[in-house]
Order: sequence, then C-alpha cells, then structure tokens
Amino acid sequence: MNSFNTIFKVQIYGESHGAGIGVILDNVPPGIPLNEDDFTADMSRRKGGQRGGTPRVEADIPELKSGVFKGHTTGAPLMIWIANENTRSADYEKQRDVFRPGHADFVAHIKYKGFEDYRGGGHFSARLTAGLVAAGVIAKKILSTVSFEAQVTEVAGQKNPEKGLELAIAAKDSVGGIVSCTIKGIPVGLGEPFWDSIESRLAHALFAIPAVKGIEFGAGFEAAKMFGTEHNDTYIDQYGGTTTNHAGGIIGGISNGNPITFNIAIKPTASTPKNQTTYNHTTGALEDFSVKGRHDLCVALRAPVIVEAMAALVMADLFFLARSKNGTAAI
Amino acid sequence: MNSFNTIFKVQIYGESHGAGIGVILDNVPPGIPLNEDDFTADMSRRKGGQRGGTPRVEADIPELKSGVFKGHTTGAPLMIWIANENTRSADYEKQRDVFRPGHADFVAHIKYKGFEDYRGGGHFSARLTAGLVAAGVIAKKILSTVSFEAQVTEVAGQKNPEKGLELAIAAKDSVGGIVSCTIKGIPVGLGEPFWDSIESRLAHALFAIPAVKGIEFGAGFEAAKMFGTEHNDTYIDQYGGTTTNHAGGIIGGISNGNPITFNIAIKPTASTPKNQTTYNHTTGALEDFSVKGRHDLCVALRAPVIVEAMAALVMADLFFLARSKNGTAAI
Amino acid sequence: MNSFNTIFKVQIYGESHGAGIGVILDNVPPGIPLNEDDFTADMSRRKGGQRGGTPRVEADIPELKSGVFKGHTTGAPLMIWIANENTRSADYEKQRDVFRPGHADFVAHIKYKGFEDYRGGGHFSARLTAGLVAAGVIAKKILSTVSFEAQVTEVAGQKNPEKGLELAIAAKDSVGGIVSCTIKGIPVGLGEPFWDSIESRLAHALFAIPAVKGIEFGAGFEAAKMFGTEHNDTYIDQYGGTTTNHAGGIIGGISNGNPITFNIAIKPTASTPKNQTTYNHTTGALEDFSVKGRHDLCVALRAPVIVEAMAALVMADLFFLARSKNGTAAI
Amino acid sequence: MNSFNTIFKVQIYGESHGAGIGVILDNVPPGIPLNEDDFTADMSRRKGGQRGGTPRVEADIPELKSGVFKGHTTGAPLMIWIANENTRSADYEKQRDVFRPGHADFVAHIKYKGFEDYRGGGHFSARLTAGLVAAGVIAKKILSTVSFEAQVTEVAGQKNPEKGLELAIAAKDSVGGIVSCTIKGIPVGLGEPFWDSIESRLAHALFAIPAVKGIEFGAGFEAAKMFGTEHNDTYIDQYGGTTTNHAGGIIGGISNGNPITFNIAIKPTASTPKNQTTYNHTTGALEDFSVKGRHDLCVALRAPVIVEAMAALVMADLFFLARSKNGTAAI
Repeated sequence: MNSFNTIFKVQIYGESHGAGIGVILDNVPPGIPLNEDDFTADMSRRKGGQRGGTPRVEADIPELKSGVFKGHTTGAPLMIWIANENTRSADYEKQRDVFRPGHADFVAHIKYKGFEDYRGGGHFSARLTAGLVAAGVIAKKILSTVSFEAQVTEVAGQKNPEKGLELAIAAKDSVGGIVSCTIKGIPVGLGEPFWDSIESRLAHALFAIPAVKGIEFGAGFEAAKMFGTEHNDTYIDQYGGTTTNHAGGIIGGISNGNPITFNIAIKPTASTPKNQTTYNHTTGALEDFSVKGRHDLCVALRAPVIVEAMAALVMADLFFLARSKNGTAAI
Repeated sequence: MNSFNTIFKVQIYGESHGAGIGVILDNVPPGIPLNEDDFTADMSRRKGGQRGGTPRVEADIPELKSGVFKGHTTGAPLMIWIANENTRSADYEKQRDVFRPGHADFVAHIKYKGFEDYRGGGHFSARLTAGLVAAGVIAKKILSTVSFEAQVTEVAGQKNPEKGLELAIAAKDSVGGIVSCTIKGIPVGLGEPFWDSIESRLAHALFAIPAVKGIEFGAGFEAAKMFGTEHNDTYIDQYGGTTTNHAGGIIGGISNGNPITFNIAIKPTASTPKNQTTYNHTTGALEDFSVKGRHDLCVALRAPVIVEAMAALVMADLFFLARSKNGTAAI
Repeated sequence: MNSFNTIFKVQIYGESHGAGIGVILDNVPPGIPLNEDDFTADMSRRKGGQRGGTPRVEADIPELKSGVFKGHTTGAPLMIWIANENTRSADYEKQRDVFRPGHADFVAHIKYKGFEDYRGGGHFSARLTAGLVAAGVIAKKILSTVSFEAQVTEVAGQKNPEKGLELAIAAKDSVGGIVSCTIKGIPVGLGEPFWDSIESRLAHALFAIPAVKGIEFGAGFEAAKMFGTEHNDTYIDQYGGTTTNHAGGIIGGISNGNPITFNIAIKPTASTPKNQTTYNHTTGALEDFSVKGRHDLCVALRAPVIVEAMAALVMADLFFLARSKNGTAAI
Repeated sequence: MNSFNTIFKVQIYGESHGAGIGVILDNVPPGIPLNEDDFTADMSRRKGGQRGGTPRVEADIPELKSGVFKGHTTGAPLMIWIANENTRSADYEKQRDVFRPGHADFVAHIKYKGFEDYRGGGHFSARLTAGLVAAGVIAKKILSTVSFEAQVTEVAGQKNPEKGLELAIAAKDSVGGIVSCTIKGIPVGLGEPFWDSIESRLAHALFAIPAVKGIEFGAGFEAAKMFGTEHNDTYIDQYGGTTTNHAGGIIGGISNGNPITFNIAIKPTASTPKNQTTYNHTTGALEDFSVKGRHDLCVALRAPVIVEAMAALVMADLFFLARSKNGTAAI
C-alpha cells in the first residue's frame, strides 16, 4: 500500500536506479501559487554531497507533470516527477550473491519472489524521500501559518553532531543520530481520538522514513519514569496555556495549542565503509563483505527536511479532516 | 476517524459512562470457533482491581451481537458490545468548572464545541480499550501460529515493576512505565515499503492506546548511538538467520523472520491522588484540584494485554494484505 | 467490506434473525439535536404491514448507544442499535436442503464455507436497510437545506403503482418496480472528477440496496438514443441555469446546481408466494418449492425512504469532502 | 479523490493538454511478464481516427516508469506515463467567454475557483481513459482465466451501430449509444454484501467513465416489469447452474458463477458539430456557439475497451479481497 492520508493523499512511486521517482498528491486545493523554484530550498537541504555524505549527487529538480496551470495548483491530482540521472547500477549487479546486512535486500527477495529491482535498494531506497520532500513543500504552503522545524540533536551519542560525525570518520564506520522536531502554530483541536490521534498519524508517516527506529512525543520515554504530578502540564489560563509542555502539544491524541514536539531515533546507515561478514547464498559460506555504491556515513544529517515534510503532510490532512466537519478552520 | 486497518477493519465506539462500549470487526474469515468464554483470559488481564488499581471493576463480558452463528464466525461484520454497569457519573458533573490536568477534557471541549460527553473522559476513556482487547482475542485466533507476549519491564524508572509501584504508593502519586512486546512466528515478507511498514502500522495502532508517548523497535533509541557495524545484524544462513536482532525483526518495513520486538513508553496516569493546581474557568483563578473518580496508580500495569491486542490486529491485517497478493500464505 | 464513504463513514452490521441490526456513523459533527423521535417518520415509511406487504412487523425503534449526550450529537462515533423481535427462525431451518431461487443462499453458502447465518438471509437481509434509514435521518439533518424526495413511479410495468400491485395480487406473484428520486438544494461543485463522481458514489450506494438492478441519471438510457443538440442542456444565465435538465444535475461528475435526478430499477421480490422449481442438494433432484417466511409482494414499495437515506449519506460525505478543501461551504 | 479500489489501487492523473496523463497501480503482484507491446491491442482499440471519429490521433504508447524490471512486474507501484503530443490548445483559449454546453467547463470553473486547466476539458477529459485502458491490460493479465468482452449494441437508438452512425453523419450531430459487456470465468463468491457488492463496485467505476449516464445488470430495467417467477433464475444443479441469467451473474452482490452481464448508456458527445445556443458570460447575452477542437461523433464507439478495463480493474480488486480472507483462490 503505497499511499497515505485520508483526504490529502500522497502516493509514492519509483526506484533508486530506474527512470525516476516521485509522488502524486490528491486533493491539493486550487489556487496555490507554485513553481519549480519553490522546491529549491528544501530539495537542497535533502541533497547529499556534504562532508561524510554520499558522492552521488543528483540535480533533483521536481517536474510538475500535472495539477499545475499558469503557475497555480488547479485542484486536480498533482504529479511530481524527479528523474534519476546519476545512476551506476553495475555496482549492484556484482553483489547479487550476498544480501547486504541492514538492507531490505533479503526481505524484498522473499516478498517479491526474486522479481524486485535490487539496484540500490530499488523501491526501498531512501532516494524516494526526495519526492516526499517535494510533497512537503506543498503541504507547508497549505499550512502557511504553521512552522515545521527539525534539526539533528545527536550523532553517535554526541550532543554536538559534528563531534559525532568526527567519530564516524575516524572509525571509518557509519553512525546513527537523533532528529528533534517542533511544530508551531497548530490550533487546538486537530487530530482524532484513538486511531487518528496526532501521535498515531505522525508516527505512521515518520516510521515510513527509512532508518527510523524510534519516536517519542513530548517527554516521551522520560515520561515513563515520572510521577503524575511532575508530568501533568498545569493549566494557567482559559486558552489551555500550561506551565510546561511534557505532553508535546498533544493530549488524548488532539492538539492542545502548545508546540508539538517529538524526537526520532535514526539507526546508522546500513551501508558502512567498514568490512562486514555476511552469508553468500551462492557459495553457502560466510564471507567478508564490503559495500559497493555511494552512501552517507550518517543519514540522520539529511533527515530533518524529510521529517518536516512528513509532519507537514500529516498535519495538512488532519487540518482538512477537521475543516470538513466544522467548516470553521482556525488556520 | 474511528476505524483502522485496510481489510481486517476495526471500528471503535462508546463512552466511559454511556450505555456501553465496543468494536465492530470487518472481514473476519468465516468458520473460526468463537464463544464468550474465549474472551475471559485476556479480558481479566485488562481489568482493574489489583493493588494500586482502580476500584471501578466491571464484569466486562463481551457480547457477540452479530457475525457469530452456532459457535463460529460467519464472515459477516462481528459486533462486540460491552455494557457499562459500574458508572458513577455524578463525580464528573461536579468537576465541570476545571479541566483536569493531563486529560483530554480541554481539547475535547474545544474540538466538540461543548457537546462532548465529559463523564469519565467520554469517548477518550481508556475503558474503550476493553473492546480492543476483545477484538485482539479474535485476531490472535486468526494468527494461531503467532505468539504475542507483552509485559511491564519498568515502572517509575525501576526495572522491578513492583518496586516502582511501591514508590507510587509511598508518594501517593501516579507513575509511568515501560511495556515490552515480542511477536514470534511472523513469516518473512509481511509489511510494505514506506507507508505500510510494520513499524508504521504498529506505531499507528499503539499510539492509539491512551497514555502511550513513545515507541522504539529493536535497538530503538539505542541504535542512534551505535556504529553501523555494531548495529547491522549479520546474516548466517540462507533463511535470513542473523547473529543479533537489533532490527527488531523488521528491515525496510518488512518482517525478516526474527522476533518482532518493541518497547513503548507509558506516561503516568493523568488522574493522580495527589493535589494539583489548575485553572478554574468559572472563577478565572488558579485553584487546588483533587481528582474525583476511580483510577489506577499506574496504567502501564494493565497495558500489556492491550498492546498484544493492538499488535495482533495490525499483524492480522498485514497478513491478509500479503495473502491477497500472493495467495500462498505461510501462516 | 462493510463500510462506506470517506469521512462520514457508515459501517453496517447485523443479521435478519440474530440479536439485532444497526450502523455506526463516524465523523458526525457535534451539536446536532437528536433524539429517538426524530427517526419515527422515516422508520415508519420503511416498515412492512401495508397491503401486499410482509406480515412481519417490527417496532424498529433505533436506540442511540453512543455518540449522543444530552440530546445532541457529541462528535464521537454514533452507534445505532435496532433489536430484532419478531423472528421465526424455524421457517428457515426447514429449508436448508434447497437454495431459494433469487436469494443469496447459494452464493453465501459457497463464499462463507457453510458458516453463514442462513436464517432469513442473515446479513444479506433487506432488514439491514432499517439501520441505513436511521443513518439517513442524521444525514438529512446535516444537509438541512437539501431535500431528498423519492417515490415509486412504476410497479410491474404500470405507471400507476396501485394498478401494478393489483396485478401482483391477482397473479399471486411478486413484482418489480421503479423508484425515482430528486435531490434539490445541492450547490454547484460537489463531487469529484472520475472515481468520486456523484454518479459513481450514488450508484455505489444505491446498488448496495438489495434488489436494485439498474440506475440511470437524468435522461439516462434515453440519452443513448438522442442527438447531442437534443441532449445538451442550454445555458441561459451566469449561474449555470439551463433550459432542460437532461444531465440530471451532474456534469463531469460534479453537481451543476440543477436538481439531481435518477431512477432505479428494482427486481421482483425473490420470495414469491407462487410455487417454483428448484434443485434439492440433499436429494439431488429438482423439486417443487414454496417459500416459507413472510415477505412483501413488491419491495419497491418500501424502497423510496431507503433510496433517500442512501442518497443523503453519499451527499453528506461529498459535502464534507468539498468543505475540507475549500473551507467555504455553501450549505 | 482520484484513486479507486481497496488493494489493487488505481490513481489517475493528468490533463488533456498538459504534459501527459497516466495512472499509478498499487499492489500489482510481482512476476507478471510485461512490456510495452502488451498494450498495443487495447490501446489501438481506444484510439480515435476512425469514420466519424476525432482527427486528433496520438501515438498513445504507455511508458512504464516504475514497478517493472527486466520485463516483469516487481510488486512496487507501477507508474504508467502517456505523453501528450498532438495538442492544439489555442482552440480553447478562444472559447473562454462561454461554457461549452454538456461539458464540465462551468462546474470546474466554480469548483476550482477559476484555477482549472480549461484546455480540452483539462483533468475532466476523456483522454484520461487512455491511462485506464493501459491499467486494464495489467488487470486482465492478473485475471488471466477471466474474459472481458464489451461491444457497442446500439447507436442513436439503432441496434445496428453503423446505421446509427449514418444518422449522426447525416444530421451533422453527435449521438449516444449502448455498450454491453459480458465477463466470463469469475468463480462463485467474489463481491461483498452491501457496500462492496459487485454491482456497487462496477457501477462506481463505470460511472467514472465520462458520458456514462445509466447502468443495468442482467435483466436490469426490464426486471422492474417482471413477475418473481419469471425473473428468478431456476437452479438445476449443485454448482449453482441455472436455466436463465436474469440476475446477470450476481446475487446478493456476490458472483454466482454465471457470466456477469451489464449494459451502459452513453450520452451523445457533448461536442457536436451542429450550432448551439449558449450564454456568453462576458457579454451577458445568449449567442450562437460552434464547438472548436477535434471530437468524435459518437464516443460510445470507443468505449468498449474502456468498459472492459474498468471491469477488469474492479474484478481484480474483488479477487484480491476474496483471496485475502480465504487464501484459496479459485482463479
């Protein structure tokens, strides 16, 4: 199932080394000014090429193939196409007798019965997040009075990300990290009880980002160690204002007017320059394995803009859902 | 939006102090033996009444109102009704001039424009999880060769839950905790890339449980501190067997044959016996507030069977989805 | 899949001779005044007992089990329960060795592997439309400025329905009929191109009514015989006013401000008092068959209020969908 | 909402005079042999250019942009792109001061607030059915033992379509027609009671085809004139065999093993060569109007392959749904 959201639907497609990747957005409201320059800032935040980053760098210019006319969205499905250019598939043909550790090669091979496009992870590739970042640009435009701000707050256990990256470079090994995000400007009342709680929806989308292995809202795992009187945010006025924000802006699954805050844990890049041992299913023996292809030492460094995009896609849908029922949107 | 899943749909309904609560399950396969005794074990695991638990104890006998005939599921929608009996709504009428800290009272009041059923949290009440546990019993029957085992692994920061509960009783305050779950017997290949990754789907459902504020799979937040060569699970055979299980049984969103493992963080019960300060929107002043109603000191203690139920509901749906496409289910 | 609509979801459940039947409505806006009297008029329009009608007459009082508090909808899932009272299941136990012609008995037996509740058609029974009529009452309240008016316009090929019914009574046989519906007050712009055209959505819901075998909008099948200049509705003002309404109020799947009009064809009641031949799968021989149970000679006579309910459920959802995107609902 | 189906999802996109049009298919099973030649036969059936047909003829070669690798489907989303080549948008710029009678111009203008792509009907164009036909080719491959056969059975009220077309040419006016379809090889048990009856699902998809205004299954509108003993199909064996097929292969919404049969009514092409009167919203006066652009006299002539495609898309989804629950697909 490669689509998400109820109204503002996002359908993803493409492969790392195929013709290209992209998304289709459904139910984009008509009349939003949009041209290809609008994508430049966020797309370049996602790009590789920085220190410790993959040498594969793509132009990554989203082409708007439908749903835009005379510089505005039309209300029809909006199709974004991002061509693949800088592909070197030969690297992957050589590695077909081992499944790369930490990658989806093995599960894809079983699930798709050997018909998967295995080049660079195929449809599982993090390259597909380029389409999501482009979609996020449009979601941010829809929620023009809301701010989404994510940043790397830890790499390799170091609060100073640069120091964590130095550790990785020194060890010639990949590393994980933490991304923290704050959403400001969400009015009280978005989200639904139970299945469509804000936490449920955001977590659903955020765990769709490759390499994410944990999510916590507000005080998160720390909350599990607290007493109730410590954790409860004390109300101080009639607008729901509180002294603290341990709830991370969400109570009962619903926004309470405070900033929405969450952290996500990102595992180390599965492709590490260091040698590993793995099983060769042709020889039937364990063997030394060294990764081919071009990769980042720390994918967390490129994640903030992807996290923002995912959060914006989810919040736009919850906003449409709330407006469908009450017709008096606060945004 | 009060339903979840794509094929094996779960629709939830009811309020804490209304006539009752329950669920409707859609697309239950026909021919599963089912009677009301099947629910006894899991329903009693969820019940209050233990040490530090709420004195509100309900019979909680799920009545099967449709979809069952002559002791077997029919394939038609299966409606479960659980009547409310032991309600004391008067407690809540008294508290309408304050919004209880840590509860959804304030957000519900805004979102539903003052028409919400405010008694005992109404539709936001954790009492609705009784219906989910009943639904989980059926999901577990469908996945008869899969085991779901959740337990409390930490209370109030103590690895020994009983010790944590003692701290709460001594402090006359509520506390949070950690629940850990292991799912064994899931074949390789369930889950989908991106939006319907196992992590996405499980997290979506688990964050629907009231009081859950964090989720991590496999090594989770610890993974963010690791090097790639430490974190990657080394393959050792042709079946995808690995030396470690840092991935928690999920790679690229897909099950890899290892046990699926995750931890969830549960915040302290919002209703604590200790006095708190809160805003009185009638007087316009801050005032001392003491919770009425009957509550647990630590809701985490009742959570394991709810976590198992949610996990079973999700995995059953992903199983149906996989089977729809390949027709050769391994379960 | 027993639910319908995208936002204003309708989940159906129950069996003809089980404990009861009903629906759950999701995303009902809060604050709609609602009590059990509101259902009386439409529920009694659906009831049997008139001339040529089934002698099975139920009280059919919808009980609001959740989602209503102090006489208003709360915004939480609204569960409607209608108990079955006047059941005579023994009639059906006797007929298990033949599949009733024109009924779903045979297909249900295969599809549900013999586990189906076969009493009175089980979940396939037209009795379930009682829940839909109740749901329709709420949809009509939501669309308070829209009118839905359906009536029987033909029975047994007679434009005068009473005359057609006389034919049936004289022949001691069941008969079919036509129901025509007009929806007034829908603003321009509801519906979506392609999949969620108004025709698509209405037809989807209307074909869910047992015994419906045909639907046409506006000029319908007659349009297939017309020239373009005859069929096109000529615009005469800036508001989309037209001289004719051959399009039935829908162009490109979207409402154009004219009344929405459609006809539906309803087959004769499958249960006819006249003897039939059928296959006995116990004896393996053809045999004379006479229907047990209590039935209408012409189900079309009870259909108008069901048709209105279905139309209202669909239009309410399309209204919510339109409002989610533009926030400036005309209704 | 521009997607359809539950498992085998079809997302449509594009505009008549934009860069191109297409579809994305989700949950295509892996391993289906597929190359661009597979589309040739059905795509050329849909093409214009025949007698009385539009002089706009496109190459219409579907490009498989994702989800196919080494000549087989991979199981990942399958994106089909069909470039627009033969566009003459200038025709439409000239006509902006009138809304073309019978077209969606007026409703689109209101619904999309003036931001719609109005060239050639934009996203409303029947050109988008090219993508659906391509999608249908894949659905037919999935249901390899099922046959879908649609043909024009009436034009302008003439049982001989060619004679009807002569009437149109003589009158220099467009005409409507009837398309009849038969689906053979569907096993007993596909479809669901109520909302996902085969009739509901097929009608939903078929009314998404531009210009369709009526649908009837089996005896259809004729059934409304029949007695029960005439209409009921008599069972003659244990496999559900019947003497007649008035039900059109569907009972209770479920396939009964007989051929599924239905007719659809198609209105005359909205664009007719004959002069019409319409409202000019710039001058505020009625004026003579003659259609620009290139059009068919009878769109029904191109509809059969589109009808087959839609039917195949729906039946594939119902097949996946049935298989998800019983795992023992008969196909």
